[in-house]
Amino acid sequence: MSEYLDQIDSPRDLKRLPEGALEPLCAEIREFLINSVAKTGGHLASNLGVVELTVALHRVFDSPADKIIWDVGHQSYVHKILTGRKNAFASLRGQNGLSGFPKPGESRHDAFGTGHASTSISAALGFCAARDLLGKNHRVVAVIGDGSMTGGLAYEGINNAGRSNTDLIVILNDNQMSISENVGALSRYLTKLRTAPRYLVAKAGVERLLTNIPLVGKGLSAAMEKLKNGIKHLFVQGAMFEELGFRYIGPVDGHNLRDLTEVLDKVKGMSGPVLVHVYTKKGKGYGQAEDAPAAFHGVGSFHVETGEPVETKVWGTYSDVFGRTLTRIAARNPKVVAVTAAMASGVGLTEFGERFPERLFDVGIAEGHAVTFAAGMAKAGMTPVVAVYSSFLQRAYDNILHDVCIQNLHAVFCVDRAGAVGEDGATHQGLYDIAYLSHIPNITILAPKNKQELIEMLDFAVNRLGGPAAIRYPRGEASVVLKNACVPLEYGRAEVVEKGGKLVFVAVGSMMDAAYEAWAELRREGYNPGLINARFVKPVDLNMVRSLAGYDMAFVLEDHAASGGFASLVQNAMSEYNVAVKCFRSIAFPDEFVGQGRRRELHAKYGMDKNGILRTVRAAMEETEGESERRRIRLI
Amino acid sequence: MSEYLDQIDSPRDLKRLPEGALEPLCAEIREFLINSVAKTGGHLASNLGVVELTVALHRVFDSPADKIIWDVGHQSYVHKILTGRKNAFASLRGQNGLSGFPKPGESRHDAFGTGHASTSISAALGFCAARDLLGKNHRVVAVIGDGSMTGGLAYEGINNAGRSNTDLIVILNDNQMSISENVGALSRYLTKLRTAPRYLVAKAGVERLLTNIPLVGKGLSAAMEKLKNGIKHLFVQGAMFEELGFRYIGPVDGHNLRDLTEVLDKVKGMSGPVLVHVYTKKGKGYGQAEDAPAAFHGVGSFHVETGEPVETKVWGTYSDVFGRTLTRIAARNPKVVAVTAAMASGVGLTEFGERFPERLFDVGIAEGHAVTFAAGMAKAGMTPVVAVYSSFLQRAYDNILHDVCIQNLHAVFCVDRAGAVGEDGATHQGLYDIAYLSHIPNITILAPKNKQELIEMLDFAVNRLGGPAAIRYPRGEASVVLKNACVPLEYGRAEVVEKGGKLVFVAVGSMMDAAYEAWAELRREGYNPGLINARFVKPVDLNMVRSLAGYDMAFVLEDHAASGGFASLVQNAMSEYNVAVKCFRSIAFPDEFVGQGRRRELHAKYGMDKNGILRTVRAAMEETEGESERRRIRLI
Repeated sequence: MSEYLDQIDSPRDLKRLPEGALEPLCAEIREFLINSVAKTGGHLASNLGVVELTVALHRVFDSPADKIIWDVGHQSYVHKILTGRKNAFASLRGQNGLSGFPKPGESRHDAFGTGHASTSISAALGFCAARDLLGKNHRVVAVIGDGSMTGGLAYEGINNAGRSNTDLIVILNDNQMSISENVGALSRYLTKLRTAPRYLVAKAGVERLLTNIPLVGKGLSAAMEKLKNGIKHLFVQGAMFEELGFRYIGPVDGHNLRDLTEVLDKVKGMSGPVLVHVYTKKGKGYGQAEDAPAAFHGVGSFHVETGEPVETKVWGTYSDVFGRTLTRIAARNPKVVAVTAAMASGVGLTEFGERFPERLFDVGIAEGHAVTFAAGMAKAGMTPVVAVYSSFLQRAYDNILHDVCIQNLHAVFCVDRAGAVGEDGATHQGLYDIAYLSHIPNITILAPKNKQELIEMLDFAVNRLGGPAAIRYPRGEASVVLKNACVPLEYGRAEVVEKGGKLVFVAVGSMMDAAYEAWAELRREGYNPGLINARFVKPVDLNMVRSLAGYDMAFVLEDHAASGGFASLVQNAMSEYNVAVKCFRSIAFPDEFVGQGRRRELHAKYGMDKNGILRTVRAAMEETEGESERRRIRLI
Repeated sequence: MSEYLDQIDSPRDLKRLPEGALEPLCAEIREFLINSVAKTGGHLASNLGVVELTVALHRVFDSPADKIIWDVGHQSYVHKILTGRKNAFASLRGQNGLSGFPKPGESRHDAFGTGHASTSISAALGFCAARDLLGKNHRVVAVIGDGSMTGGLAYEGINNAGRSNTDLIVILNDNQMSISENVGALSRYLTKLRTAPRYLVAKAGVERLLTNIPLVGKGLSAAMEKLKNGIKHLFVQGAMFEELGFRYIGPVDGHNLRDLTEVLDKVKGMSGPVLVHVYTKKGKGYGQAEDAPAAFHGVGSFHVETGEPVETKVWGTYSDVFGRTLTRIAARNPKVVAVTAAMASGVGLTEFGERFPERLFDVGIAEGHAVTFAAGMAKAGMTPVVAVYSSFLQRAYDNILHDVCIQNLHAVFCVDRAGAVGEDGATHQGLYDIAYLSHIPNITILAPKNKQELIEMLDFAVNRLGGPAAIRYPRGEASVVLKNACVPLEYGRAEVVEKGGKLVFVAVGSMMDAAYEAWAELRREGYNPGLINARFVKPVDLNMVRSLAGYDMAFVLEDHAASGGFASLVQNAMSEYNVAVKCFRSIAFPDEFVGQGRRRELHAKYGMDKNGILRTVRAAMEETEGESERRRIRLI
């Protein structure tokens, strides 16, 4: 069906195509992308935007000898299509399927694994250093979006590369937005470059002129050098990057294959660090995505003709509940401000931003700044609420510890996407926030079991607590399990839903769903299990811990890594207070990176759904108690 | 003795001095600084460099109404002297004494607590946002060194501030080095600005000219705007900062009080974000410090006349051992490269750098980049060894997890200054590395008990392991306790020094010193305690854990926070494998931020020295066993 695409299983095949075939090929790739992602879901707009760029890169460079490093990596679909993986696209982002991000284990064309933003320049510079030391001479190319350029790590990379004189090519893919609209001064600067008249040809001319005029020779004075630079500024773009030691080339139309190929061909022969400024359109070639690139950034299955999603959007996700609640709280409490890092819509702050535009701060992909900026506001009397996904908040660990918690500032972290996130895989799982937050002094950590509890916890953390707090909740629909709380929210106290007999479940936040199901099943079978909702991850409720001594078996459940998780905090407290239970089991993710798959599938795989929990309970009964004891538990 | 300094207890007093008194005052401040730090030790060179700048700031601005935020903060001594704290300098950096960093609890003139680099612009922007929302109109000033400008967080702050239009003043204190010599393209750019002919006056003239020539009016075309900017570049410095939305003023001689005051006075009235580029000399006014600013960055007590230290430098610190060993390893293994972040000399890499200049990468204050850059090198076949202090490695948590460990790359983290670091206080303690590393899959964590074991562990991690590893060791002299190892180093195995009877010490790394002392004392008293050197923090040695079942009492010692530390990992494993001990005690730092004081004092305060350990052991004996049991243990 696809005349040219069908011929391509490697970059070598691509290089064999006549030039005239490239534009039709790009059209075929777009068609393939749209139809494929419409079925599986995935990142669409960013990939439609880099079709020509990726084709040009693989025409000009020689992967895998040359290394292409995709920043973030959700724009690597075209690269995957061209490097022998197009037939795997039906499995995209599925359990054991094709990854939505570069994975060196998947193909030798994926030079470096990515997922979080802004890493590509640093990693690419590492490849350059290794190449130079090993005496090799391949090319290293980092492809980074303007969104990723708002991250400080990208700047650290630029700052080091610009001084290095190593042969590094950075392709700045400027589509004027990252996940949502871009922010920051650099973005404005790029726009200025992009919209100014083009001087690409003029630049070469001026440089020739300047080199040839007699004054510009050996005896060149500093003042004349300055004059020369001044004149260059009249014609030459990208002074900022040039000052940082990069040769700036551009801007180049990223949908003009001929221009792109020509520029990349020249760049391939240049030495030193070079930045190529390419401008592209997110969603290019699919009207619906061009019109709403943010909506088509990451999508579920959709109808190709209309762009409408196959499944209607879940109403009432935890993010929605958070956003609505915070808006309501902010209406009453003028000190409340919201901070996020390029995920305002993802964390549910759209309405808040419409209602209180001057109180919403979207700082770009800059989690560290988001937190330290919030610390400054908190010290100055505001109550900042920082809403960031669990996996991305990892990047602000030191800022939380050093800038917020040492000063015991009142800032609230709303840790969205905490727990398994699903299809984005290992780089995006929110499985470590309890581990990286709970050892920090002064912080309070909460986890709601359902929608109502998130509302209460947010109010509690914003209006009733004085120090730092984090509230963790998962991706997806807010639970309504156990709608009516048994006891009001109280600092540091767990909620005992059912005291039970000799066996008890202690669940953190979202795991109350599965714990409740397992609990109900055991009750149906005649057992009398207890059910406790932890509510507070930190401080651990010592009354709850002491109460465990009254049970034979305790099962602690959390949507988190076992190592460093809530169960380990409970164990520490048990040990400290000499509380013993015959059998203590942590039901959580093991000490390995958790790959892609639906949330539900991942929980099932790791024994964290109802059936898995029951398996663990039954095995524990067999092991530790024997049949007679089992009967005893049943009777109590 | 100090005619002017004696009159000053607040910025108000300073403002009352006649202008002619300021230069003599600065001389008095320098004399005070030199004599005071000569006694207590502390940061000298950086404070000598900012005497005039601090005086000018407090003359022009109105602290505490105006907020002055000191980046890092070790250059805040002059600020402390001028804000009522000069009489406390005898206690500088001592337990319960004056902090060497800004501490809001110490004075209302310390607007924001700092310690780590690059936070000031983000925090200051937070103060600006709060001020604007609250309708206040004070000034906010961030004072940041060129070294701190190599950190990505500073760039994230600049990028956000430059787009904000808020009234923010950033003073860039350019002394051409941070802790050691500066690196990176920005540093080169600043040098260019600094060394170019000065156009401060000319700039104003050009701007007037450009505004007045008829072409530059309402009908200004884009091309003419470009021409205008081009001409400006002939005269106007700091294009890079201007492109990022800041008004650039400078460079200004930071030792010329009249210039400084005049510029700051003008800047005070400007709106929008302004960057003032001030150049200063580290160590200014004290010959020995001017000649060796790095040596006088942080010093112990010294003789004022000669600059010689009162106590001779400790020979054979862990950093020295690390550096020497890595140099030896690198001589045999050409794949080994070293990476650090503005602390090459501090971590002991000076010799390595002299021997292998092309294999040492000092990336500036950019820990995140250091790690991701190392990940790139590791993926390309090198074996990077990243040497960074424990407290600063916090800033690369996500890079370690996301860039190194998910890909299971062979990179070795040498975590220097792990444990209590002493006089720098809460912001610098290395008490969290086990907590923020041990839950990351794939990583191996080691801790040497002495010099010889560090040598072996480094060789093991570099030459025998294939995945990521971290080796943690403390500040100060390398121990020689138990010089001859009982058993060779083996992956995941603890070293049983003495099996003992009913009581056992399990110590991590540097805590073997105190554990050994307590162990020896108990033996003298007739007990038969066991002594185990953990060696591996991760993986926890399960044989060791199972062996604990044979004891009545286990004491786990670590120079780390109890929460998330090694003891908690042991407890988790005990719980998982149903290993019980009548009494299990963690001897570690409690869940609070640990302030300043000598390492020894801090360990004593928290019961982590020999006496404290013995107190804990005896209390535990009383509590859990009673006198009779105590006798029993003695007999065994």
